[in-house]
Amino acid sequence: MSESLEKIEPILLMGPGPSCVPPEVYKALALPTIGHLDPVFITIMDEVKSHLRTLFITENTLTLPISGTGSAGMETCFVNLVEPGDRVLILINGVFGQRMQDVATRLGARVDALEYPWGEPVDPEDVFRKLKENDYKIVAVVHAETSTGVKNPVGAIGEIIREHGALYLVDTVTSLGGIEVEVDGWHIDAVYSGTQKCLSCPPGLSPVSFSQRAIETIESRQTKVPNWYLDLSMLLNYWQGETRTYHHTAPINMIYALHQSLTLILETGPSSVYDRHLQQHQSLVDGLEGLGLEMLVSKPFRLPMLNAVKLPEGIDEADVRKKLRMEHKIEIGAGLGPLAGKIWRIGLMGHTARAENVSRFITALDSILKQG
Amino acid sequence: MSESLEKIEPILLMGPGPSCVPPEVYKALALPTIGHLDPVFITIMDEVKSHLRTLFITENTLTLPISGTGSAGMETCFVNLVEPGDRVLILINGVFGQRMQDVATRLGARVDALEYPWGEPVDPEDVFRKLKENDYKIVAVVHAETSTGVKNPVGAIGEIIREHGALYLVDTVTSLGGIEVEVDGWHIDAVYSGTQKCLSCPPGLSPVSFSQRAIETIESRQTKVPNWYLDLSMLLNYWQGETRTYHHTAPINMIYALHQSLTLILETGPSSVYDRHLQQHQSLVDGLEGLGLEMLVSKPFRLPMLNAVKLPEGIDEADVRKKLRMEHKIEIGAGLGPLAGKIWRIGLMGHTARAENVSRFITALDSILKQG
Repeated sequence: MSESLEKIEPILLMGPGPSCVPPEVYKALALPTIGHLDPVFITIMDEVKSHLRTLFITENTLTLPISGTGSAGMETCFVNLVEPGDRVLILINGVFGQRMQDVATRLGARVDALEYPWGEPVDPEDVFRKLKENDYKIVAVVHAETSTGVKNPVGAIGEIIREHGALYLVDTVTSLGGIEVEVDGWHIDAVYSGTQKCLSCPPGLSPVSFSQRAIETIESRQTKVPNWYLDLSMLLNYWQGETRTYHHTAPINMIYALHQSLTLILETGPSSVYDRHLQQHQSLVDGLEGLGLEMLVSKPFRLPMLNAVKLPEGIDEADVRKKLRMEHKIEIGAGLGPLAGKIWRIGLMGHTARAENVSRFITALDSILKQG
Repeated sequence: MSESLEKIEPILLMGPGPSCVPPEVYKALALPTIGHLDPVFITIMDEVKSHLRTLFITENTLTLPISGTGSAGMETCFVNLVEPGDRVLILINGVFGQRMQDVATRLGARVDALEYPWGEPVDPEDVFRKLKENDYKIVAVVHAETSTGVKNPVGAIGEIIREHGALYLVDTVTSLGGIEVEVDGWHIDAVYSGTQKCLSCPPGLSPVSFSQRAIETIESRQTKVPNWYLDLSMLLNYWQGETRTYHHTAPINMIYALHQSLTLILETGPSSVYDRHLQQHQSLVDGLEGLGLEMLVSKPFRLPMLNAVKLPEGIDEADVRKKLRMEHKIEIGAGLGPLAGKIWRIGLMGHTARAENVSRFITALDSILKQG
């Protein structure tokens, strides 16, 4: 083992992702690499697709993991659906909404944005009004805004968009596996997630799913998808059908790990897993408030898996994070953008969301704050 | 462990990739996941960049692994360098040259191609003539054409392109770690590779490197890179410099594995590793010819790590591959495109390129052909 790899030690990952990985998933990751066209691997691929459908609560045939991290999933959704000049509406209340705006603009879309203060949710009424003003091909929103800890009302927005007829594109990078994501029930047409949040698998894959309407949109494109690597029509030829035509070499071992992490969630039962997230979230909030700290987001819109807490007065926040990491082997996240220097972001994602981790963190933070 | 993962067993991977992975690399892959901004991880990133520079024989600052498989590296090179209307010349003698043509065309380039029969190398004289006829912004070629087993004269072509002034873009997916790749010496401006060939790391990352001229081209673009995920200017902010601005969550564990696989090659010494590939290639060719088989590619242009051998007369080639896989746990590859049903592709990549593997394969193939 090379010297710098020997310095890696287990860290309690309570930041905005990656999260802690269970031992079974590490074991799956290190299974022998086999060929990407091997019959044993084809079965594993089929099961990963099926497990993802269960977790996304969808019948979508086109459900698979993209060979890249969550942002590659975002890119996949936009690059396959957008053609130059298409009107796109993005609902923005944090970094990941802004990122959607950048991605869509680069692809030549005419992008409008509905923007909200960071820490507040999107208001479906505004979406309703905006859709009366203009025709949009796509409306896009982030379910769990990792930069603020806000849960957007994706189901309610979906009802409004359905009436209007636009395609509905949703980011579930941080929500999938931690709170319910109901792709078909919420009328979502394109959705992407990431492995390194509530799925508790290392980073490297992005599960996506596309509705029949989205597929028809892709099939009736006037222009070729300007991205060979993420072209869904070609990816599909590898991920389903009889021939399994080679597209690119799949990240074999990462797919083993995703298979195992999905199996763990489905064996426990998604609703039990969501309950565990909620319970640990409540316990964390109680602990933080017990230390005199205040949450950023108002109660109905708080994400259980990403907790934004306001910094205590007059504190060197980077120093606290450094002490947590160095003295207590705990990672938490800093604020981003307008929230930099104003909040910490404390993750309770997947395998991290356990009682012993919450109490270990609260004890550590208490001791550091008392040292002053 | 889930049931279908328990069915995975070690396969001798002698196809066109992935290759066999050494135990140290599996061990690195399963080390605890830490944060993508963790100081321990930043050191690992820096060492990966440095190791890649050594193996690519380059001083290029902009040298890093892209978070996707080899084809994502191809996409990265083209999408950062090409703007709509740019003239691009692609030298094509197999699947991966064709793929370059597709990638560049989708990005709006005006693509010319110099095409050669599959199994024959690119002729630098033709490149010379073509560059006299037209001005090209980019000339692109595949070093080791995995679909045919041909080694293209990348160094000689580089001398010609240098005179002309075009940017030189080279695919080293299958060559890096198996034969010498001399990025600076051959005047290469943009190069990509993959982890799952001669680096003997599982698939999932694509090392790339860009010259100062390439960086200047990117910096003077008229249009934004139409691909957020692969935009090098933003990737750079994460991979180097003081601030290490978050772009996307790096595939942490895959980067551990790449670090370890590069360490193994550099500790052994690249030239010893290349010698081992050559010796095993010679031993494989001797074995195949001993069975009465004939190589596709003429001797001076044969790749040591990808051996295309003509099928014996009147054989069910898929059945032979199936028997190799099921009875002997050995994977080899079929022919692609015009070579489908005409050749097998036998890989000797990285950890696969060892004497015991060659003799095991020749013995197995001999016994199957005799049953025939």
